[in-house]
Amino acid sequence: MKRVTFLLVGMLAVAGVVASSGPASGKTDEQASPIYGIAIPPGYRDWKLISIAHEEGSFNDLRAQLGNDIAIEAYRKGTLPFPDGAIIAAIHWKYVPSEVNNKAFGRAQSFVAGPTTNIQFMVKDSKKYAATGGWGFADFTDGKPANEATLKNCFGCHEPLKAQNYVFTHYAP
Amino acid sequence: MKRVTFLLVGMLAVAGVVASSGPASGKTDEQASPIYGIAIPPGYRDWKLISIAHEEGSFNDLRAQLGNDIAIEAYRKGTLPFPDGAIIAAIHWKYVPSEVNNKAFGRAQSFVAGPTTNIQFMVKDSKKYAATGGWGFADFTDGKPANEATLKNCFGCHEPLKAQNYVFTHYAP
Repeated sequence: MKRVTFLLVGMLAVAGVVASSGPASGKTDEQASPIYGIAIPPGYRDWKLISIAHEEGSFNDLRAQLGNDIAIEAYRKGTLPFPDGAIIAAIHWKYVPSEVNNKAFGRAQSFVAGPTTNIQFMVKDSKKYAATGGWGFADFTDGKPANEATLKNCFGCHEPLKAQNYVFTHYAP
Repeated sequence: MKRVTFLLVGMLAVAGVVASSGPASGKTDEQASPIYGIAIPPGYRDWKLISIAHEEGSFNDLRAQLGNDIAIEAYRKGTLPFPDGAIIAAIHWKYVPSEVNNKAFGRAQSFVAGPTTNIQFMVKDSKKYAATGGWGFADFTDGKPANEATLKNCFGCHEPLKAQNYVFTHYAP
């Protein structure tokens, strides 16, 4: 029985369905996001693509949003609100010109993903995060979670998007 | 034995490992790319993310590169040349400002993926495509393959990138 449970947990982890919420075994408290207690979900880099974006200004980045299977299914079916267990990951990379691409195109027009700046997660748990629209927020730079003051700002920006269940990103076909 | 083969093919298809190369059963010739005989690989939209980019100029798009399991493994291990069976998909979307995002950030700075413009594929088969660096090329707009004249231009752009096995995109961590 123990072995079956272990295998099941392993399979769920591989499928990217399990989010580490709160201090997971083998992880220290320092690795979890303040306020919401969210650690970096294992295997998130393997998740399917939701969409991509470019932010100018002080962000100056290229960003991709990935979703775990629950989030992707909800996006593709148009399910709102997102069901509990949905996780959206946002990877932000520096916005970097590509000399190689520009040479091929014969014109300075190409910008690619440079070094990672930070990664963010939204975790849906309608009970645990009832005060913030059912979403918990996390932000990591070099594996270190953003501080409480930063995290307190998350929901303020997402709150006007109630009609989209507080999510900015639309699915790109 | 038949059933085992069927299951294996089914599993490979789910894993996105199989590319339809040439006129596949149930597909018409019109759906395959000229010169290289490449049809749209089933399930490519579920593949893992390689990287993203923004092209200005006449492209004016946001683009994401996805890879099948063989391509992703090669990228992550730094395997060059890419092994046979590797497929890289590039999805191009119109570069569209996001009013909703701009409102949240208080500044016109946000651009997101709009409607799909075209999708492209590079399929590695060192024997079949020996004349073009081992890569076959395909480009589809609304499911229709680009014509022979367009496809003839592909390798010319990729050829200078011999050191990267003729691939523009680097893996974004």
